[in-house]
Amino acid sequence: MRTYLDCYPCFFHQIIGTSRMMNVDEQTIRDILVAFGQSLPRIHAEAIPPEIGREAYRLISEKTGILDPYAKLKKECTQQALSFYPKLKERVASSQDRLLEAVRIAIAGNVIDFGANADFDLDKDLAVLLSQPLAINHYRAFCHVLKRARKILFIADNAGETVFDRILIEELEKQVVYAVREKPIINDALYQDALDAGIDKIAEIVSSGTDAPGTILNLCSDHFLEIYRSVDLIISKGQGNYEGLSDETRPVFFLLKAKCAVIARDIGVKQGGLILMKAKNYDFPVRENPIPIEEVSCE
Amino acid sequence: MRTYLDCYPCFFHQIIGTSRMMNVDEQTIRDILVAFGQSLPRIHAEAIPPEIGREAYRLISEKTGILDPYAKLKKECTQQALSFYPKLKERVASSQDRLLEAVRIAIAGNVIDFGANADFDLDKDLAVLLSQPLAINHYRAFCHVLKRARKILFIADNAGETVFDRILIEELEKQVVYAVREKPIINDALYQDALDAGIDKIAEIVSSGTDAPGTILNLCSDHFLEIYRSVDLIISKGQGNYEGLSDETRPVFFLLKAKCAVIARDIGVKQGGLILMKAKNYDFPVRENPIPIEEVSCE
Repeated sequence: MRTYLDCYPCFFHQIIGTSRMMNVDEQTIRDILVAFGQSLPRIHAEAIPPEIGREAYRLISEKTGILDPYAKLKKECTQQALSFYPKLKERVASSQDRLLEAVRIAIAGNVIDFGANADFDLDKDLAVLLSQPLAINHYRAFCHVLKRARKILFIADNAGETVFDRILIEELEKQVVYAVREKPIINDALYQDALDAGIDKIAEIVSSGTDAPGTILNLCSDHFLEIYRSVDLIISKGQGNYEGLSDETRPVFFLLKAKCAVIARDIGVKQGGLILMKAKNYDFPVRENPIPIEEVSCE
Repeated sequence: MRTYLDCYPCFFHQIIGTSRMMNVDEQTIRDILVAFGQSLPRIHAEAIPPEIGREAYRLISEKTGILDPYAKLKKECTQQALSFYPKLKERVASSQDRLLEAVRIAIAGNVIDFGANADFDLDKDLAVLLSQPLAINHYRAFCHVLKRARKILFIADNAGETVFDRILIEELEKQVVYAVREKPIINDALYQDALDAGIDKIAEIVSSGTDAPGTILNLCSDHFLEIYRSVDLIISKGQGNYEGLSDETRPVFFLLKAKCAVIARDIGVKQGGLILMKAKNYDFPVRENPIPIEEVSCE
């Protein structure tokens, strides 16, 4: 997804929000904002949002000397999410369509923002989220591709969300490679966050080789690209990965909540919409039809 | 008022909003955003919001070659406001406290946004606005200073709002100098806009000598400063003038709607609050007391 005009003010908002969360003094935040403004001309014309975001967060680290500002929050998010793991497993076990329930749970994991909403009532909110219809639902195509897939690449988004990803991976019953960021960027999951969520029990954890808050292929490692090009199905979580991969010609399915107005408009849904969407530039063998989701089967 | 951190993203929002209103192509808007970002380090540390805003709008004019993008809209606003003039005069004539009603009307004039809200139902909305209690109400002090004032400086804000200002000036029954901007900046009133509103019939119109979207004293003309320093009462309309004069030690009364969250916080009211407020750094002889506004008399 290209960088829209409205992304520019958002980068400044993000710098302020993250710096305040880190208790950075106002003058230093001002310095970061000014330095970021000054850096804009150096960013190439086709840069996608995670590339520009990467520069913003690099400046925060440079000016504050703090390499992983969300380290503590990430640990807490994972611990909090793990405490819900048994209940989520029960939900899956007692649902009519285990896979669909696991997909919904993985999308719900992208919704939860432990940082901004510390008193989040997961029990209550999950019930609402899991009953909310998907704004885009390509479950039929997802099932079709999944059934035939031997190896799956699952690209992670945030720490904590990793626990919800684990529940989906456990239902895939396939060989899964779980890709995390190489270096700290916002609250994106790193290797340790995946380990803390217990992903190592059910998937091979790899680094994408990047510190961008999304998958920018030309910044990824050769090892990651080899996996990306060879797998039969790619599950991409969250907005940052969508921004990086939305125009790709690989069999990608995007699982996310369209939290930001720009992304919602790019996808063509209302802000807040829950999304299970196939990549538009890959020729999937199955067309979606408008039958009710209850009648779609993955068998 | 100093420039708060949250002002920075807002400048980028404003560039996008104004440029879109002007139907500027996306690449040019991007160029303006990047150029503005690059200019941030050149802005001095104590710059107040109208100084930075001035640079943003200067860049829009420079990159598009359009010196007065709001010219047509300003004319339309004034014409629309003039069509309500007789009804507003009736309201004043039939009110218990003519001056208070005129003050409320002048504040309401700062509320109305013809640009963003073209189907604004002035008849209906004015009734709501005029019954809404003022979030800060220094009417008692205002009356006290007004009664003793020989000469008043009235600093205008937007075109169209000028008609509402005229109604207040007509109730002041004093010698009034009405100050407008020297050069086009956003939809701020210029000399012609004041003329179009009929201000020349009841006040002397002068230019403040600046093209900033607010009163920045060190950018104003000597002629304006002479008036500013010699009058007995200054009426300052709108946010931009508040930003420039909030720390001043002159007998200023601010009439505005706190539309922006940052200004509302600076003043200490909820966003959207209607304000009649004396300057905090001038020692007014009258203290406000909490008696109901109905019992305050200007006699």
